Amino acid sequence: MRAMSDLRVAVLGVGIMGADHVARLTSRISGARVTVVNDYLIEKAEQIAAGIPGCRVISDPLDAIADPDVDAVVLATPGPAHEKQLLACLEHGKPVLCEKPLTTDVETSLEVVRREAELGKRLIQVGFMRRFDHEYARLKAMLDAGELGRPLVLHCAHRNPAVPPSFGSAMVVRDSLVHEVDVARFLFDEEIVSIQIIKPSANPAAPDGLADPQIAIMRTSTGKHVDVELFVTTGVAYEVRTEVVAEKGSAMIGLDVGLVRTRSDGTRGGQITPGFRERFGQAYDTEFQRWVDAVRSGVNVDGPSAWDGYAAAAVCEAGVQSLNSGLPAEVAMVSRASITGA
Amino acid sequence: MRAMSDLRVAVLGVGIMGADHVARLTSRISGARVTVVNDYLIEKAEQIAAGIPGCRVISDPLDAIADPDVDAVVLATPGPAHEKQLLACLEHGKPVLCEKPLTTDVETSLEVVRREAELGKRLIQVGFMRRFDHEYARLKAMLDAGELGRPLVLHCAHRNPAVPPSFGSAMVVRDSLVHEVDVARFLFDEEIVSIQIIKPSANPAAPDGLADPQIAIMRTSTGKHVDVELFVTTGVAYEVRTEVVAEKGSAMIGLDVGLVRTRSDGTRGGQITPGFRERFGQAYDTEFQRWVDAVRSGVNVDGPSAWDGYAAAAVCEAGVQSLNSGLPAEVAMVSRASITGA
Amino acid sequence: MRAMSDLRVAVLGVGIMGADHVARLTSRISGARVTVVNDYLIEKAEQIAAGIPGCRVISDPLDAIADPDVDAVVLATPGPAHEKQLLACLEHGKPVLCEKPLTTDVETSLEVVRREAELGKRLIQVGFMRRFDHEYARLKAMLDAGELGRPLVLHCAHRNPAVPPSFGSAMVVRDSLVHEVDVARFLFDEEIVSIQIIKPSANPAAPDGLADPQIAIMRTSTGKHVDVELFVTTGVAYEVRTEVVAEKGSAMIGLDVGLVRTRSDGTRGGQITPGFRERFGQAYDTEFQRWVDAVRSGVNVDGPSAWDGYAAAAVCEAGVQSLNSGLPAEVAMVSRASITGA
Amino acid sequence: MRAMSDLRVAVLGVGIMGADHVARLTSRISGARVTVVNDYLIEKAEQIAAGIPGCRVISDPLDAIADPDVDAVVLATPGPAHEKQLLACLEHGKPVLCEKPLTTDVETSLEVVRREAELGKRLIQVGFMRRFDHEYARLKAMLDAGELGRPLVLHCAHRNPAVPPSFGSAMVVRDSLVHEVDVARFLFDEEIVSIQIIKPSANPAAPDGLADPQIAIMRTSTGKHVDVELFVTTGVAYEVRTEVVAEKGSAMIGLDVGLVRTRSDGTRGGQITPGFRERFGQAYDTEFQRWVDAVRSGVNVDGPSAWDGYAAAAVCEAGVQSLNSGLPAEVAMVSRASITGA
Repeated sequence: MRAMSDLRVAVLGVGIMGADHVARLTSRISGARVTVVNDYLIEKAEQIAAGIPGCRVISDPLDAIADPDVDAVVLATPGPAHEKQLLACLEHGKPVLCEKPLTTDVETSLEVVRREAELGKRLIQVGFMRRFDHEYARLKAMLDAGELGRPLVLHCAHRNPAVPPSFGSAMVVRDSLVHEVDVARFLFDEEIVSIQIIKPSANPAAPDGLADPQIAIMRTSTGKHVDVELFVTTGVAYEVRTEVVAEKGSAMIGLDVGLVRTRSDGTRGGQITPGFRERFGQAYDTEFQRWVDAVRSGVNVDGPSAWDGYAAAAVCEAGVQSLNSGLPAEVAMVSRASITGA
Repeated sequence: MRAMSDLRVAVLGVGIMGADHVARLTSRISGARVTVVNDYLIEKAEQIAAGIPGCRVISDPLDAIADPDVDAVVLATPGPAHEKQLLACLEHGKPVLCEKPLTTDVETSLEVVRREAELGKRLIQVGFMRRFDHEYARLKAMLDAGELGRPLVLHCAHRNPAVPPSFGSAMVVRDSLVHEVDVARFLFDEEIVSIQIIKPSANPAAPDGLADPQIAIMRTSTGKHVDVELFVTTGVAYEVRTEVVAEKGSAMIGLDVGLVRTRSDGTRGGQITPGFRERFGQAYDTEFQRWVDAVRSGVNVDGPSAWDGYAAAAVCEAGVQSLNSGLPAEVAMVSRASITGA
Repeated sequence: MRAMSDLRVAVLGVGIMGADHVARLTSRISGARVTVVNDYLIEKAEQIAAGIPGCRVISDPLDAIADPDVDAVVLATPGPAHEKQLLACLEHGKPVLCEKPLTTDVETSLEVVRREAELGKRLIQVGFMRRFDHEYARLKAMLDAGELGRPLVLHCAHRNPAVPPSFGSAMVVRDSLVHEVDVARFLFDEEIVSIQIIKPSANPAAPDGLADPQIAIMRTSTGKHVDVELFVTTGVAYEVRTEVVAEKGSAMIGLDVGLVRTRSDGTRGGQITPGFRERFGQAYDTEFQRWVDAVRSGVNVDGPSAWDGYAAAAVCEAGVQSLNSGLPAEVAMVSRASITGA
Repeated sequence: MRAMSDLRVAVLGVGIMGADHVARLTSRISGARVTVVNDYLIEKAEQIAAGIPGCRVISDPLDAIADPDVDAVVLATPGPAHEKQLLACLEHGKPVLCEKPLTTDVETSLEVVRREAELGKRLIQVGFMRRFDHEYARLKAMLDAGELGRPLVLHCAHRNPAVPPSFGSAMVVRDSLVHEVDVARFLFDEEIVSIQIIKPSANPAAPDGLADPQIAIMRTSTGKHVDVELFVTTGVAYEVRTEVVAEKGSAMIGLDVGLVRTRSDGTRGGQITPGFRERFGQAYDTEFQRWVDAVRSGVNVDGPSAWDGYAAAAVCEAGVQSLNSGLPAEVAMVSRASITGA
């Protein structure tokens, strides 16, 4: 009964995120084990492999993908490596869970989408983990069930306590906004057609030259409005909030995550999740368990697709244009039918 | 048109609470003015009167009550003075708003109730201001409308940040619990028939000899349960919480009073009301405005009555017995019919 | 002692809002009485006056303002009448509390500002009552005290359950947005220099032709960002929410007003304030009490000024331009120095 | 490398809870597989086993425990079967995760404790899953770190929407209160020495003869107070709330679980978890993952122990006494030193 043996996974890239995923697959996910790890820092890969029985290092990522001891691949390598590695996964027919971004530009993302479409089988899942968060899932279910009527407006806030010194203004769009773009597309089931980035006067605590906060204003194909506050040097905590305003009511998630309510010294309070691990740990675990389950059972993966990765890239590309020009930008995308109909 | 001229009020006792009431009547209440003040500290009274046009000091409280320039009386004198002053108000037919306690013991309270009943006209209102708080009023309205079905259980918490050094264990019952007793009687429309005071091991921060916290366990005439946490040295803030558990659901008030929600430095939070003024300022204002309106319009006052003061005193008396004995105590009360039927 | 006799107020316009103010001055405010009422519907004015001892109807609003029995004026007349009535108040040196709008266009508003400035004494207060709401006042105090550091971004939501059939798209700007404009100017102590109105696809439940919801995007003189969701056919309740995002943290008000928390039938919940009276009743009362106190004590009124009314009008004027053109609009205002320096 | 192969688990009892555990071990827990299932309903066991590759039915529970293909045991059999099965596990040296109760009476529980102590190795973990809930764990960590100072009082509420018709008054104590007893012992690190069950007048919706709600009043060895509202026919949802009141502040968990906040039709609200699976699913998963990890790594299990099961049984035994007598009851327990010192 082949399907029920453990899924043998290669994890490519074992930096912070990849190492998290190795630990996840090894110690919290049922039905998978990590048989191969790879990293451009060979010592890092050796160190990770040493802690896992039956796990080898393969120094070339394409060899790792091709290895007969590998059923499926997790890509946590730097974005510029994704295109070639994704195409290799497609070539070898191996399911792959790819951390965002799909690739680093819109054209190569589209190329990946096309190549997968030619295969006629879904192999690629993009790591938009929020879709697996209990609250986002519940919000989506409410909308799908019509509990709130037709959605009209989406307000999002994405706040980080701090970013590395190298974090530039365009990275706020590509690394932070990208998640909110996927959330909007996921909740509304519509493409985003235009975007404007507003740059208020900067936070005095932000590094010189970093436009922070930024406000993104987006419009969907049927005219729904989405706004996102992006603020990555708050000094507060990791805060991600989403509010849908709809025909029959509104719903908000993410306001008070972390439920111990304290009262001391004149104030009521509670801890806010300090980082994405605390906020979205459950979402990552669920994402991986479902991906492993889908792959093992031999069905197509059903999480966010290469198309979702391409669409997010196209919106962020237009976002960076707007960031630079100060003007609204149209999102340039091919029609989905042109791909699936091909 | 006599009824619509300003109500001329004598305020007896101008300590912290009485001075608050003078300011309230003078600067926030429509249709009243303070024409007489009295205090056993004559200088205090002089000082207050000096700030109010047309206000005199009368040094004898009974003269103040009898004065023709006085339409109605507010009693904020120490509890031991209440009996004589209340009886004087009854004798002169003057409406009186009496801060709790009605009197300092059950027998004299009952005597006051009887004397008012003999007059056949309600003149006495006891200062249980919480009945005029928006939230308590809404909770009462929900219960009266049957929105929650029959009430079954009441949980209360009464927490003070600190008390004066002179505050003894029995004062926790007489000064703090008394408000919760009235809340229970108000919400349930039933008398309390038994009470037990539990003394957990004391807060290390409480003064030596003060039993704090205390837990009061009460039972109403139809078997409803009431529990109250009394904790007067929390060091936190002024917290008063009430939860009714009923046949069709439950309702809680007082959890998050003060609605500015802040997020900073890793925590979400908000200020808790530091004292009873911040928590119940609106309730006091409403209490006084309604009392003034009722008196001016010539109808009977309709707030908490002398009977409510007597009943609360009877419950607290039994509470102090239990505090001392460590055993449950029955509440000794005459039947209401024996008074109103006389 | 003249200062301490009751302030004699003329209320001009006794529709819904004006009648509320008459009731407020008559039954909840200390130190004032309504001596004159006026309305273009004479029967309405007669009916109101009949319920108030010592109150007369004067059929001409300018006569009412000039009447020697009137110390101060409340304007709750339709906007087009304001200019002439305000100028009459200035001419007679009578303090006036004017419901918004100051006047119906920017030029006449500026003219009123200029005429008051020439007098060298503040007589006009504009009815932006939110500044007197406990929560807005607390938020302002936090900002002034630097508790949150420098403010950067303001998010507002203004939702009404329904509007009359006559309510048009520009009224959303002039009647609803105007309050948020004042809130932004109040909290940030800065002028708004540009505004854009975004029209998402409309709520299916909105009347034909009404652009609802609308999103207003504004920028202050130092580059702070303000966004406002305006949605007047929600079918939900009256919801007004404000969040300041600042250098050291953020603060939100208005999320859960009405503090009885219920739990029944599988859900936790609570009532939202159904209308502006429930939400801002306390703010109106405080606004009026402070105005009466200031006028009686002979000092200048210190609430929102004619300039605040002018500035709000100028921003809304630009907002309506943007609503019509679909493009951002600059706010055209004279400099404040050009007035006060005159 | 024996330690890292999958843990082979026998699940005894595959009713609702046991079947949940089979699914958990099979599809969500890393490093374990179910090799044997057993149930007194053989068809039920066959049906479960059929869905799991490599899983057999063994019809005799003691044979299942002894089977060489079994490394560890999960007991989800009815309480009366536990004693014999636990002793068999001890005899075979097999780690066992036993759903509460440890056994059905205090004496046999104590016997199990003694037998394990004689082995000098911890093999038994009792299924008090709440200790693994994120919020309880955080509350415990706060207390251990002294963030709230010394704890003084614990308030608990345990509400079920409904119970089966067979549910009797003593089951409220044995099945519901038992969890709160463990929570109190866990958070306070102290034994409970006395208990009183109060029976308010019953919920009209409760089945005839069921005392519901019940209030449990407990006292710990150092005099800390614990009260618990037990209410199993609320018709509302599954609600479990815990509040610690301590020297420097208080902390509450369980108030608003389920974080999607909705606003519609005049009310704000949110779904409450309908049952224990939704409320404590994460806790069960974490409990099992940690147990599997501990057993695989060859260390002693470190979750709630046989002693914890014995102590909870002793408190509930006294609780049932009090339920029947109406009087407070002392908890009869041997000293822990008499066991571990033996």
